[in-house]
Amino acid sequence: MNKTRLEAFSDGVFAIVITLLILNVRVPDGRTLTLQSLRPLIPPLATFVLSFIIVGVYWIAHHHMLHFVQQVNRRLLWLNLLVLLCVVFIPFPASLLGTGFNNPLAVRLYGLSLIATNASGLLFWLYLSTHKELLVSTLTSAFVRTVIVIHSSPILGYALAVVLAGWSTKVSLLLYALVPLFFILPNPLLERKIGAAARAMSAEPKA
Amino acid sequence: MNKTRLEAFSDGVFAIVITLLILNVRVPDGRTLTLQSLRPLIPPLATFVLSFIIVGVYWIAHHHMLHFVQQVNRRLLWLNLLVLLCVVFIPFPASLLGTGFNNPLAVRLYGLSLIATNASGLLFWLYLSTHKELLVSTLTSAFVRTVIVIHSSPILGYALAVVLAGWSTKVSLLLYALVPLFFILPNPLLERKIGAAARAMSAEPKA
Amino acid sequence: MNKTRLEAFSDGVFAIVITLLILNVRVPDGRTLTLQSLRPLIPPLATFVLSFIIVGVYWIAHHHMLHFVQQVNRRLLWLNLLVLLCVVFIPFPASLLGTGFNNPLAVRLYGLSLIATNASGLLFWLYLSTHKELLVSTLTSAFVRTVIVIHSSPILGYALAVVLAGWSTKVSLLLYALVPLFFILPNPLLERKIGAAARAMSAEPKA
Amino acid sequence: MNKTRLEAFSDGVFAIVITLLILNVRVPDGRTLTLQSLRPLIPPLATFVLSFIIVGVYWIAHHHMLHFVQQVNRRLLWLNLLVLLCVVFIPFPASLLGTGFNNPLAVRLYGLSLIATNASGLLFWLYLSTHKELLVSTLTSAFVRTVIVIHSSPILGYALAVVLAGWSTKVSLLLYALVPLFFILPNPLLERKIGAAARAMSAEPKA
Repeated sequence: MNKTRLEAFSDGVFAIVITLLILNVRVPDGRTLTLQSLRPLIPPLATFVLSFIIVGVYWIAHHHMLHFVQQVNRRLLWLNLLVLLCVVFIPFPASLLGTGFNNPLAVRLYGLSLIATNASGLLFWLYLSTHKELLVSTLTSAFVRTVIVIHSSPILGYALAVVLAGWSTKVSLLLYALVPLFFILPNPLLERKIGAAARAMSAEPKA
Repeated sequence: MNKTRLEAFSDGVFAIVITLLILNVRVPDGRTLTLQSLRPLIPPLATFVLSFIIVGVYWIAHHHMLHFVQQVNRRLLWLNLLVLLCVVFIPFPASLLGTGFNNPLAVRLYGLSLIATNASGLLFWLYLSTHKELLVSTLTSAFVRTVIVIHSSPILGYALAVVLAGWSTKVSLLLYALVPLFFILPNPLLERKIGAAARAMSAEPKA
Repeated sequence: MNKTRLEAFSDGVFAIVITLLILNVRVPDGRTLTLQSLRPLIPPLATFVLSFIIVGVYWIAHHHMLHFVQQVNRRLLWLNLLVLLCVVFIPFPASLLGTGFNNPLAVRLYGLSLIATNASGLLFWLYLSTHKELLVSTLTSAFVRTVIVIHSSPILGYALAVVLAGWSTKVSLLLYALVPLFFILPNPLLERKIGAAARAMSAEPKA
Repeated sequence: MNKTRLEAFSDGVFAIVITLLILNVRVPDGRTLTLQSLRPLIPPLATFVLSFIIVGVYWIAHHHMLHFVQQVNRRLLWLNLLVLLCVVFIPFPASLLGTGFNNPLAVRLYGLSLIATNASGLLFWLYLSTHKELLVSTLTSAFVRTVIVIHSSPILGYALAVVLAGWSTKVSLLLYALVPLFFILPNPLLERKIGAAARAMSAEPKA
């Protein structure tokens, strides 16, 4: 299996998922539309924007991981399909959340779906980190560990949101929004971590 | 992040959005179809054609901008996702407009969505114009300014349509149709502008 | 505009349209499904298969034309978008036909949609044939004419089907099925035409 | 016809089909969602996961076959479209199965759809195996035979499931899940077969 075709197929799936998210927002009748009738659309539209950003973060993370892959084997192919299975599933809990902003169960299912996606990405990278023959040779152990930390830390944020949903769904939704922001906004903590790993990569001999 | 994968992903999103537009047109029952029952389909079908052309213009503009990009960084990646977020959203106001040709609110939301898309494209290009290390070196300041003018001028047309919708939705719809036509039809003003910028690009040294 | 990106975008649109066709077939409830309840699904399923094949023929024809294109200009880009507009529209009349096998109007709209697609493809090729600087230099006038004949002849078959629909929708449906078969099945007439054009292309100097 | 564009188009179709599968799962209202209201979603969600894996297996099999293709002719192009027609159809029986877990007819239609897909893939490969000028020259007869066995053996499993559905739909569903697992899980039988074929490919001169 060729890496280019794996990338093209994965890109296709990500592009379709990110576009399908808008279909979750039920369009009201344009003839009777008023500003008041737009109000119940705020939760599904907010869920659309949130999910778009989260899938965008996953797409970028997927690219970064594949960037260091040199060779693809059968096992990695199936781990990639597991990641895509989780990504393709996201429109379902996103649609539930769109109507269930105040329902702790809907809020929790959304978070569990994100946790599953992060866990599958982590599994993908852990497999790679124990099969270094599939990775480019310039990659250092420090960088491999940094990627593990970056991929697993959102799980904590999402898990906290899942737990807190019974107490306040608003706090959970805030957490869902803050975690991806951590990866988008200019971020000294993230940049220091990546910078240190990059410096280590040029200094440290390959593990 | 590789420019080729950014292009492939963006192309995928544009291709899906442009194809989903037809799903906004509710198909009547073929058994009882008459010429009369086709009449209420004219507004959604006209919206489909209009939105197809507008998304087509955005796709071409996106290509032209990326054509001059040499390198992609994290910030540009997210600005590109912002453009795609606006493009992915278009089927929603398009669907509202399809049923709400005579509703000023529906007409306005469509225009606001187009303004947001143009503004995001403009932001993308402004970021590039202040980070010339990401652009190819042959690009001149004159050309950079021409692209800014081309990207921001439709905003005026759309804004006028949004304002006028309360007075006459027909005039607004006409404006939505005329703005993209300006970019499609053979156009001496546009060609002179691009021609002058191209001439300047071979004459003037890089700014 | 780069030819590769034009191909990639067009391929994306064709792939989505051909896949969306199955969404036109309304899925009955699996709990109460019986062989009898499958009978009303025969027209939409037949329409799905027919439209899949027809879009497949268009995809192949599109590739053959682009194969000889060397350079893409603004005008050609928009003619390509016109072809894609017609292709993207096909699921709409296909959905109407799925429920309206016995309704002459539904049968006619399907045919008119196919005629529009063939006409747009013909326009694309006629533009190319009068702008030979965009085509590869080995192309002969004989081959250009053969492509014109191949692209315009289905229009006659579809037009006949549109006319006859008032008399017998069954005959029209048969015609819709026979025209693409002409391009799929091993076909001495088509092969002789293409063979002669290919022979001419090596013998005759470029026009 | 260029092999790269055939791959890109097929990848696009596979990516869309695998993503559309989630649309088959009807999303309940998030406001009134309870754990009890999630129970009837288990069959459609299980069908989603099962169909995702099965389409994933087909995608990988499609890649493996195309990997050995050197040249594409008109006939092969249409055989590839026949494979894609079967793949595009899968969401329809999958949707039926999602609501009809206990209905032998729904279970059988799903199996028949998979049998048709495997048969079309087999036809694709049989055509290639009798037109060795389209294949890379290093391919041995032993490998060609192994691919035939691998592609036709699932048909037996699915056929057994179709037959047994009248007696127990549970056993049929188990068979649908076991057949793809055979191709995913580390599998000594499969690896011995492929290993032997690969060894033969380096030893045996091309047939």
